[in-house]
Amino acid sequence: MRNNRVHNQLRDIEIIPNFTKHAEGSVLISVGDTKVICNASIEERVPPFMRGSGKGWITAEYAMLPRATETRNIRESSKGKVSGRTMEIQRLIGRALRAVVNLDAIGERTIWIDCDVIQADGGTRTASITGAFVAMVYALGTLVDKGTLKSIPITDYLAAISVGVLPDGMEILDLEYAEDSIAHVDMNVVMTGKGEFVELQGTGEEATFTSAQLTKMLDLANEGLQQIFEMQKQAIHDYKEKLDCK
Amino acid sequence: MRNNRVHNQLRDIEIIPNFTKHAEGSVLISVGDTKVICNASIEERVPPFMRGSGKGWITAEYAMLPRATETRNIRESSKGKVSGRTMEIQRLIGRALRAVVNLDAIGERTIWIDCDVIQADGGTRTASITGAFVAMVYALGTLVDKGTLKSIPITDYLAAISVGVLPDGMEILDLEYAEDSIAHVDMNVVMTGKGEFVELQGTGEEATFTSAQLTKMLDLANEGLQQIFEMQKQAIHDYKEKLDCK
Amino acid sequence: MRNNRVHNQLRDIEIIPNFTKHAEGSVLISVGDTKVICNASIEERVPPFMRGSGKGWITAEYAMLPRATETRNIRESSKGKVSGRTMEIQRLIGRALRAVVNLDAIGERTIWIDCDVIQADGGTRTASITGAFVAMVYALGTLVDKGTLKSIPITDYLAAISVGVLPDGMEILDLEYAEDSIAHVDMNVVMTGKGEFVELQGTGEEATFTSAQLTKMLDLANEGLQQIFEMQKQAIHDYKEKLDCK
Amino acid sequence: MRNNRVHNQLRDIEIIPNFTKHAEGSVLISVGDTKVICNASIEERVPPFMRGSGKGWITAEYAMLPRATETRNIRESSKGKVSGRTMEIQRLIGRALRAVVNLDAIGERTIWIDCDVIQADGGTRTASITGAFVAMVYALGTLVDKGTLKSIPITDYLAAISVGVLPDGMEILDLEYAEDSIAHVDMNVVMTGKGEFVELQGTGEEATFTSAQLTKMLDLANEGLQQIFEMQKQAIHDYKEKLDCK
Amino acid sequence: MRNNRVHNQLRDIEIIPNFTKHAEGSVLISVGDTKVICNASIEERVPPFMRGSGKGWITAEYAMLPRATETRNIRESSKGKVSGRTMEIQRLIGRALRAVVNLDAIGERTIWIDCDVIQADGGTRTASITGAFVAMVYALGTLVDKGTLKSIPITDYLAAISVGVLPDGMEILDLEYAEDSIAHVDMNVVMTGKGEFVELQGTGEEATFTSAQLTKMLDLANEGLQQIFEMQKQAIHDYKEKLDCK
Amino acid sequence: MRNNRVHNQLRDIEIIPNFTKHAEGSVLISVGDTKVICNASIEERVPPFMRGSGKGWITAEYAMLPRATETRNIRESSKGKVSGRTMEIQRLIGRALRAVVNLDAIGERTIWIDCDVIQADGGTRTASITGAFVAMVYALGTLVDKGTLKSIPITDYLAAISVGVLPDGMEILDLEYAEDSIAHVDMNVVMTGKGEFVELQGTGEEATFTSAQLTKMLDLANEGLQQIFEMQKQAIHDYKEKLDCK
Repeated sequence: MRNNRVHNQLRDIEIIPNFTKHAEGSVLISVGDTKVICNASIEERVPPFMRGSGKGWITAEYAMLPRATETRNIRESSKGKVSGRTMEIQRLIGRALRAVVNLDAIGERTIWIDCDVIQADGGTRTASITGAFVAMVYALGTLVDKGTLKSIPITDYLAAISVGVLPDGMEILDLEYAEDSIAHVDMNVVMTGKGEFVELQGTGEEATFTSAQLTKMLDLANEGLQQIFEMQKQAIHDYKEKLDCK
Repeated sequence: MRNNRVHNQLRDIEIIPNFTKHAEGSVLISVGDTKVICNASIEERVPPFMRGSGKGWITAEYAMLPRATETRNIRESSKGKVSGRTMEIQRLIGRALRAVVNLDAIGERTIWIDCDVIQADGGTRTASITGAFVAMVYALGTLVDKGTLKSIPITDYLAAISVGVLPDGMEILDLEYAEDSIAHVDMNVVMTGKGEFVELQGTGEEATFTSAQLTKMLDLANEGLQQIFEMQKQAIHDYKEKLDCK
Repeated sequence: MRNNRVHNQLRDIEIIPNFTKHAEGSVLISVGDTKVICNASIEERVPPFMRGSGKGWITAEYAMLPRATETRNIRESSKGKVSGRTMEIQRLIGRALRAVVNLDAIGERTIWIDCDVIQADGGTRTASITGAFVAMVYALGTLVDKGTLKSIPITDYLAAISVGVLPDGMEILDLEYAEDSIAHVDMNVVMTGKGEFVELQGTGEEATFTSAQLTKMLDLANEGLQQIFEMQKQAIHDYKEKLDCK
Repeated sequence: MRNNRVHNQLRDIEIIPNFTKHAEGSVLISVGDTKVICNASIEERVPPFMRGSGKGWITAEYAMLPRATETRNIRESSKGKVSGRTMEIQRLIGRALRAVVNLDAIGERTIWIDCDVIQADGGTRTASITGAFVAMVYALGTLVDKGTLKSIPITDYLAAISVGVLPDGMEILDLEYAEDSIAHVDMNVVMTGKGEFVELQGTGEEATFTSAQLTKMLDLANEGLQQIFEMQKQAIHDYKEKLDCK
Repeated sequence: MRNNRVHNQLRDIEIIPNFTKHAEGSVLISVGDTKVICNASIEERVPPFMRGSGKGWITAEYAMLPRATETRNIRESSKGKVSGRTMEIQRLIGRALRAVVNLDAIGERTIWIDCDVIQADGGTRTASITGAFVAMVYALGTLVDKGTLKSIPITDYLAAISVGVLPDGMEILDLEYAEDSIAHVDMNVVMTGKGEFVELQGTGEEATFTSAQLTKMLDLANEGLQQIFEMQKQAIHDYKEKLDCK
Repeated sequence: MRNNRVHNQLRDIEIIPNFTKHAEGSVLISVGDTKVICNASIEERVPPFMRGSGKGWITAEYAMLPRATETRNIRESSKGKVSGRTMEIQRLIGRALRAVVNLDAIGERTIWIDCDVIQADGGTRTASITGAFVAMVYALGTLVDKGTLKSIPITDYLAAISVGVLPDGMEILDLEYAEDSIAHVDMNVVMTGKGEFVELQGTGEEATFTSAQLTKMLDLANEGLQQIFEMQKQAIHDYKEKLDCK
C-alpha cells in the first residue's frame, strides 16, 4: 500500500493519445496500475430529446473487462443488465465533461465517450474522466482539422482525482485499491483548470467525516489536480492553441 | 417559486408514522408538495454474501408512481429495467442508513427500506432518507418490543436536505422542483445528529462552483438539518428512550 | 374474518378525489383495509395501432407497493418483468373501462389509468376498477372544463365487486383477504349502472360451482354494486351533470 | 362464417392421441381449423414452494407458432417476454386442470402441460383445455402402467368451449375466428363431466350483456360440452377404466 | 442405433407440402423420427437496413417445442432469451437459403422462414434447411400465381445433411440422435443441386479429424444429398417448371 | 487491400504475454491491425452440470469495445442481450480449446477465456483462438508453478486462421476487413499442431464453392498455420517443456 508514496503524492500517470486507430479520439491512461482506454467518437446526430435544438450532446459509457480485477467479474452483457455502480459512473463522466464544453458550439452532434478499464487498481472513475477529457479534445480537434469548427469549444481543462481518510485518520491523495477498500471516507473531486468544482462526491463508508476533514481533503485534491492539468496540456499539445480556453 | 420562502427557509415538513398497516415501520413524509411513503420491513435473513457473518444488512429501493410527476413517467417494471437515476438514489439511501446503524447488533436480519414517491416536487431523495430513518426506528423498535433486541442499535440521528445556487448566485436551502430545474449547482447533504457528514453530493449543472459557495451551502444545510432532527425526535417519541444514541 | 359483517354486507368504502396534485384525475379508494391510488392521465396521442382512426384509447397499469401485503413482495421493476397476475389485472381494468366510454368522442387521446395498491386486504382489482372509474370522470372532466369536449362521453356508471363461496357453502359479498384465501369459489363481477354485465370471472379454486350457486352470487354482486354506484355518484357530484349518461 | 353451422352446432372435432413420441401424453386436437398439440410431461419434482408437501402440481404453457395465424406474429422468445394474453391463457389452463386432479394422490411430481397452437381459427384456449385433459390422462396412465400409481387420480372429466353473442343478438356456440372478431360478447366456459363450472370468463367487447343472455349462453355451452365429453371418452378408452371418476 | 441402416443410408424422408393453411408455404418434413414444420411467409417490406435497395431479404427463425426432445426443455420465451445454439441455427438457415435466391428479383419483400421442431431425433438443422427450401418455393410460387413475379427466382436446389465419424472410425451419413451424441466428428453440409458447397461446418467433439476423413465425409454427404434433391423435386412438382433453375 | 501482401502471406503477427497483471494468463495478440486481449482465468469450480465429475471445463466469452470498429457499435450490455454473432464466436472459441486439453487432468476447475477486441480489422475470431491458446498455457502453467499440476495437460498446439475466395476467383490467406467484406467465400480453419482439423466453417456469402476451391483454401490455411504454431512456441517458451505435447 502506498508503495512508499507520501500522503499527498500522486501515483505515476501516463496519458497516451492515438491508442487505437478507428476512434476520433483514443487515449490510454495509466494511473499507477489502473489502465483505462478512453475513446471519443463523433456521431452526426443527437438523441431524440435534443433534435432541432441546434445543440450538441456528450454521453459516456463505462465498463471493465471481466479480468480487469483480481477476481473475474461476470460481464454485464451476460447478466443482461448494467449494474447500479456502472450507471452511476457513466452518468458522472458524461455530466462532468458537459460542464466544460460549449454544447451550442458543437452543433447537433453527439460525442460518445467510452471508458473501458483493462486493468483496475482503484480510481477508475477519476482516471476515466481525466483520460476522457483528452480523448474529447482530440475528437473535437478532428472537426477543426476538417474545417467544420473554427476552434475547439472547450471552456476549461477538466480532471478528477480521489481523496480519502484512512482508518488512522490520515487524509490521503489518489487512493489505490488496497487503500480504497479500507478507507473510512472516499471522495471524488472533479475540478476545472481554474480550480472550481464540477462535482464533489464524498461518502463515509459506515463512517462519517467532519468539516475539518473535508477541508483537508479538498486541499489535497486541488494540489494533485494542478499536476494533472499539466500532464493533460502535454498530451494535447498539438491542439492546445485551438482550444477556446487555451 | 419559493412561495415567499426566504433563502434559508425549509418548506413545511410533516412526518406521519404508522401510515400503512403491514410494514414494521411505515411513514408518510411530506416536504412541501413532495410526498413519499417510506416503509421498513424486517426480513429474518441476510443476502448470500453476508450469511454466517453474524451481521445484519440494510438495503433500499426507490420508485415513483407514474403520475407522481407533472408528466406521466413509464413504469420501470414495464420498461423491464431500473434507470440509472433510480439505482443511484437507492444506493445512496441504503449507504446513508447503514452509516448510523450498528449492523453487528441487529443480527442476521435485513432491513428493507422502500421509498415510494406518490407526489414529487423536488428533493425526493433527501425526503426519502429523512423519512426512512424514522421508519427504520419503528421497525427496529418492534424487535425491542418483542424482546429480540434490548435497545435500538442506532448510533445517531440521520437526515438529508438539498442546497443549491440559483442563476443569480444566491445560495438556497431545500429546493423545490421549479428551483431545482434552473439551479446552477445542486448539492445533497446527508448529516448525522452530531453534525458530521455521511454523504456529500454536489454537482454543477453545466456550471461550476467555488470553495466559498461550497462553504455557504454547507452552512445552510446544517441550519436546516438541525430543525429536521427535532421533527424526527417528535415523530419517534415513543421509541426515543430505546435508541442507543438517545 | 367478516368482522361481524353479514354475508351480503360490503366493507366500509371511501372514495377520496383529488388525492394527488399532478394527475388530471386522482382518487384514493379504500374498501375496508384495501387502499388503492387510482390516477387517470390524459395523453394527447394514441398508440401506433390506432393512429389516424380518430378514436381514443384507454389503457391501465396496476402495481402493488412491495409492502402493501403482509409479507414483502419483490418489485416487478427489480425482477425485470411483470407477472402474469399483474398483466391479467391490468388488461381487465382497461377492458372494463373501455366498455362505458365512447372512444370516438374523446378523439385521438389516451387515458392512462394507474392503479397502485398501497395497502392490500383482498379485492384490489375490483377496488381498482371502482376507483379508476371516478378518476377517469375527473380526467375527462378537465377536458370539458377547458372546452375541449362538450360533455363527458361516458355512457354508464361502472363498478366491480367480488363474490364467493366459503368452504361451508355460504355465498358471500366483498371478500377480504382472509376469506379470499379459503374460498372455494371466487368471482369478480364488473357491472354497469343499468345492471348489465361487462365482465364476469368466476373460478373454482380446486373446486367447482353449480348453476344455483352462480345465481346466488350474481344476486349478491348486484345488491352490493347498487350501493357502490351511489357512492360513485357522490364522489363525482361536480361532474355528474356533465356526464352523457347522467 | 359459421359455414352452414346452426347456432348451437360445434365444429368438427378430432382428438388424436400419441401424436409425438417423447411426451408421456401427446395429443393433437382439431376443432374446425384450430389445431393444437397438447403434450403432458411428468417431472419427478415439484416447484420450490411445494417441496415437502407430499402433493403434486400441474402447470401449463401455451404458445402459437408464428404463422398459426393469418398474419405472422413475432415469436415471444424473440421479443424476450411473454405477452399478457399468453400468461392469462396458461394460467387458465393450469388452474382448470388442477380442479379435477387429486394432487395429493400424484405425489411430489409436476405435470407440465404444453399447448402449442400450430393453426389458429378461434377457440385456441378452450381447445387447449379439452386436448390437455386427454394428454394428462395418458401421462398419468403411464404412471399406472409402471405400477407407480394404482389408478389415475382424476376426479371428473374436464372440457371447455366458447359461446358468444353476435351483433344481431343471436347467442352462438363454438366461435370461429371470423365470429370471435365481431362478437359483442365472448365467454369461455370450463365445465366438469358432472356439469359443474370450473371457470367462467365472460367479456363484453366494448359492449355489455344481460342476465337473460348469460343464461342462454350457459345452456349452449352445456349442450356442446356434453358432446365433447363423449369424444374425450373415446380418445382415452384404454385408460377409461383406470380413472378414479370412471 | 442405425436401425439396420448401412453407413451410407439415409433415414426415411417424407416432405408434406400445404401442411397448415395460413402460411404462403407450409411443409412438414420428416427425416426418420425428426419432424419439423417449415413455414414460409411473405412480408411486403424489408428490414430497415435494406429499405430503398430494391432487393429482398430472407430471414429464418428456429425453435423446438419443449417436448420435442426426450427430456422437456424450458421454453426460450420463458427464459426471456434465445440460446446461442438457436441463434447459430437460425443464422445458418437464413444464410443458406439466401445463397440460392436472386434477392434482386423478389423486390422489397422479406421471406420469413419458421422452422419449428415438433419431434427431434438428430439432424434438426439440416432437415430444417431441406424443408424450408420447399416451403420457400411454394411461398414464392404464390407470387407467380398472383402474377407479381414471372418466375420463381431460385437459382438452384438446396438441401442439407449431416455426416460424421463414429468412435470406431467409421464415417456415416445422416446421424440420428443416438449417433450424434457419441460421434467424434459431426459435420453439416449444405449443398446446391449442382453439387457446390454453400456451407460446411465440421466440428471435432473433443476430437480432431484428418484430411482423408474429411474427403470421405464429403463424398457421403454428396451421395445422400443427390437422393434428397430428387425428393424435393417431387414435393414441388407443380412449381418445378416455374423455377429459374428448373 | 492486401497492402502488397501476396495471396498466401500472413499479416504481421505479434503475441505479447503478461499483458495485464491480474489474469493467470494474459495475452495481447495483434494480427495486422486486429488487436485482441485474451485473458485466461482459473476458477476453482465447474458449472453445475459437471459437479462431481472430477473433470474440468473451459468456457469462452468474446466482445468488442464499442469503437473497435470504424463505426461505433452499441454495447451488448446496453442492449441487454448478446448478439447471435457473439454467441457463435464464443461457442467456437470454447469448443476449439477444449479439443486440445485433457479435461480430466485439470480437475474440477473452470478456465474462463475472455477475448476482448480492442481494434478490429478482420479475423477477430481466429486471432482470439490463437491468442487464447497462449493465455491458457500461461494460466495452466501457474498451476504447475504452484505444484497443483505436474505438467500442463495440453495435448497439442492449436491455432486458427481465415481463408477465402475473392470475387476474381483467387484463393487468399488471412483476410483483412476490406477483403472479408467482398469475399465470395469465407472459411475459418482451426487446426492442431499435428495438422488435424478441429473445426472447419466455410460459408458462401450469397455464393457457392467447389471441391477444388475447398482443397486450395485448406492448403493455404495449413501453410499459414504452420508459421503461427512457431510464433506460439516462442510466446510460451518458458512453459514449453512443461506441456504434455511438448
